[in-house]
Amino acid sequence: MMPLDLQLSKALAQVENDLDAHVCEVQRFVRQPSVSATGEGIPEMADIVRSKIQSLGADCELVSTGRHPIVYGRLDAGAERTVVFYELYDVQPATESGWVVPPFSGEVVELPDRGRCIVGRGTFNSKGCLAGFLNCLDAIRASGSRPPVNVIFIVEGEEEIGSPSLPGFVRDRREELQKADCVFQPYFGENAAGTTILYLGFKGMVCLELTCTGGEWGGPVTRDIHAMHAAWIANPAWRLVQALATMQSSGDAAETTTVAGLARGVRPPTPEEKMLLDALTTSFDERVILEEQGNARCFKWSELEGVDLLEKYLYEPSLNLNGIAAGYTGAGAVIPREARARLDIRLVPDMEPDEVIESVRSHLKANDYGDIRVDVLQSYPPSQGSVSQGPVDALVRSAKDYAPGPVQVWPRSAGAAPHYVFTRQLGIPLAFGGLGHGGRSHSANEYITVEGLRRHERGIIGFLYALASMSQKE
Amino acid sequence: MMPLDLQLSKALAQVENDLDAHVCEVQRFVRQPSVSATGEGIPEMADIVRSKIQSLGADCELVSTGRHPIVYGRLDAGAERTVVFYELYDVQPATESGWVVPPFSGEVVELPDRGRCIVGRGTFNSKGCLAGFLNCLDAIRASGSRPPVNVIFIVEGEEEIGSPSLPGFVRDRREELQKADCVFQPYFGENAAGTTILYLGFKGMVCLELTCTGGEWGGPVTRDIHAMHAAWIANPAWRLVQALATMQSSGDAAETTTVAGLARGVRPPTPEEKMLLDALTTSFDERVILEEQGNARCFKWSELEGVDLLEKYLYEPSLNLNGIAAGYTGAGAVIPREARARLDIRLVPDMEPDEVIESVRSHLKANDYGDIRVDVLQSYPPSQGSVSQGPVDALVRSAKDYAPGPVQVWPRSAGAAPHYVFTRQLGIPLAFGGLGHGGRSHSANEYITVEGLRRHERGIIGFLYALASMSQKE
Repeated sequence: MMPLDLQLSKALAQVENDLDAHVCEVQRFVRQPSVSATGEGIPEMADIVRSKIQSLGADCELVSTGRHPIVYGRLDAGAERTVVFYELYDVQPATESGWVVPPFSGEVVELPDRGRCIVGRGTFNSKGCLAGFLNCLDAIRASGSRPPVNVIFIVEGEEEIGSPSLPGFVRDRREELQKADCVFQPYFGENAAGTTILYLGFKGMVCLELTCTGGEWGGPVTRDIHAMHAAWIANPAWRLVQALATMQSSGDAAETTTVAGLARGVRPPTPEEKMLLDALTTSFDERVILEEQGNARCFKWSELEGVDLLEKYLYEPSLNLNGIAAGYTGAGAVIPREARARLDIRLVPDMEPDEVIESVRSHLKANDYGDIRVDVLQSYPPSQGSVSQGPVDALVRSAKDYAPGPVQVWPRSAGAAPHYVFTRQLGIPLAFGGLGHGGRSHSANEYITVEGLRRHERGIIGFLYALASMSQKE
Repeated sequence: MMPLDLQLSKALAQVENDLDAHVCEVQRFVRQPSVSATGEGIPEMADIVRSKIQSLGADCELVSTGRHPIVYGRLDAGAERTVVFYELYDVQPATESGWVVPPFSGEVVELPDRGRCIVGRGTFNSKGCLAGFLNCLDAIRASGSRPPVNVIFIVEGEEEIGSPSLPGFVRDRREELQKADCVFQPYFGENAAGTTILYLGFKGMVCLELTCTGGEWGGPVTRDIHAMHAAWIANPAWRLVQALATMQSSGDAAETTTVAGLARGVRPPTPEEKMLLDALTTSFDERVILEEQGNARCFKWSELEGVDLLEKYLYEPSLNLNGIAAGYTGAGAVIPREARARLDIRLVPDMEPDEVIESVRSHLKANDYGDIRVDVLQSYPPSQGSVSQGPVDALVRSAKDYAPGPVQVWPRSAGAAPHYVFTRQLGIPLAFGGLGHGGRSHSANEYITVEGLRRHERGIIGFLYALASMSQKE
């Protein structure tokens, strides 16, 4: 067997050589619509992925779920290390206007300030990552090697509709999966300025719907009624507004929750995380993010800036009012029968979803709003990795080795993701992220750059060999 | 000239004789659609009304406004008294489903528990009243008399779109109009239980839209942004909720406004009004109204009952939250850029709309919500009549004389109406109401009963002769 470093350099050379074919492979994946919300093209796409994985010499099957099958495969390379490759083959619908090419054409187009790009629904999220990873295994084979790690493939088709089947699927296969060294989910992690950002964790989420309906306490019981009765009949919209107002501090200050126990478990940065934050001192500039968000404004407390602000952003839970609706804001004068609000709570370690939900329920009861119904729409805990985990360290090191620009390691993302499915259910590390640039997820003209695909694949190969070289089984 | 009491009995006999023709006249009015919101049939209807008034021997013209003409006429009967007859010839659209006959057919149909009814858009609101009054003048002529009072006709075609032209029209003709003894607006005032209710006043209204948008204070500035930013970017929906919560007392208690000065001017019942309320002690039952409102519930303070509750209903201002809307209550996790709420404030005497609006603005400023925009959508003061006004007394007496069932005189209605246009701009009494039963205004199968039309017309004739018999010019 060739030494690993020779295998690595041959595989990298193969990627350079095969780049045009690899672009075609991404296009082939993109040209097959696979819209999980409607089911369009799902069976065909599942089949494409299964065949592709089998063509790499792996066993692969489609596992039925309630809706869309999971492509489940295993490539035994006789290696010491095993990685669980997780990705998705489904995409969001592409009904937005403004596409410069048809959304499922996957054409290569020159985009302003971006150079040559593959444009299409799913290029960035996440068929570029999916095809890119499989391209890498192809390249390793073409360069005469077996992969340096064994691979278990889990490619689901329900990610864009909330991954309802994934937790059960993983739980049912815990015994096998937890023997793996890590889960790997690649990502085009380079921003438009050329900086690659790696996140070691993600927030959790609790999404609640609060419904206040007329009933024993007062108000309309069977239908909206005329506003002329407001002098003597109670209004569920007022009641919901008043209940909500008790849940968050008011005025210009920060939106700090006043729900007792909601923030239970919030922990400050660990020494490692503090070090990672400190390392961002010279490079983190909140103005870049705020500008990307349409010049949005922070709270008035935001005399905080730089890494101090970033720490608040990443380490404090948030209780967002996603929406509220009742009665009419157009014509019509009513006491509405029902008022609804949707709350989106982002959980940081070590908050627990069940405790969060219970704290909201207790808060309402304690404030005499026990009649307001609380429905849980979504709920999962945060996940947090560490560079002390070998595979995470391997990902960070390979990113630094292969990225042409700066690499930032954030202790976590401000976004939420249900990575607990792996980190908590299996108790193994998750290596998330990678090189290359793409963007406009869920929007018109979603894209990855052709150069980004090249970097992305180089980064994956670098990571797989770094993983194989890890000094000992951890 | 015949003595008035002989004229009266001949006119009443003529109504009995001509009832079939009078029903046909209501049908003719209903069969001409006249939808002010769309303009459908408006010129044709204005012409029908003008011709009909001219056929009574009156001068009549169409006065142009911004949208739909006002039919303006004058019937000089050489009488001592003059009444301004106010009605509308426009109707709401009839797009609801569930009509048992086409909405503009005006067919006579047997309705359950109601007997023979004229069914159609505008029968109850208000072509039955309009045609009914003109039928009465027809009957008086046919019975050989001149009307016992002079009549000035003001029939507008914009009532269902908020009467935008009426205040200016009346103001411009103040000199002539204020010489009249009263304004008369007939109404089918008998409820389903056979009780006729007369209201001596109506509440005023201030309708406000509050808009909170991201800006200097914080929040999204150009568009909705992703909920993941809630930990550091402010949310206009939270801010609006918190601002609203400061405007009304919270918890299970009454919705009592906490806006300083909003209720300025509210006065208790006068001795006359107190007497009228007392007279309702044995007959008023709030359960009848609440049942009609789908069994709606009062506030928890409602250990009040009967007339004590009625007094609260009629004499306290209300601050209703007609509606609130922001973000998503379906899918989507956002910090919305904008949140809107619509407030409907019902004014009782002697509240002033401008003071109410100013108190809301001051309240927001004082609570540091000066950035929340307040748009005034509608605004008019309350109006209050008294049985000490001769024409009002004449209406009450004639109702009691001609109603086969009980007559209740409420000091005012809980509803709002811009009667200030007459009572305040002209300073003359308004006689509002009448006999006969109808219902389902703005709903499918709007109707008046045929027997109700008979009673309605008898009541009008009784009122006109009572007015003519008033002892002296007041």
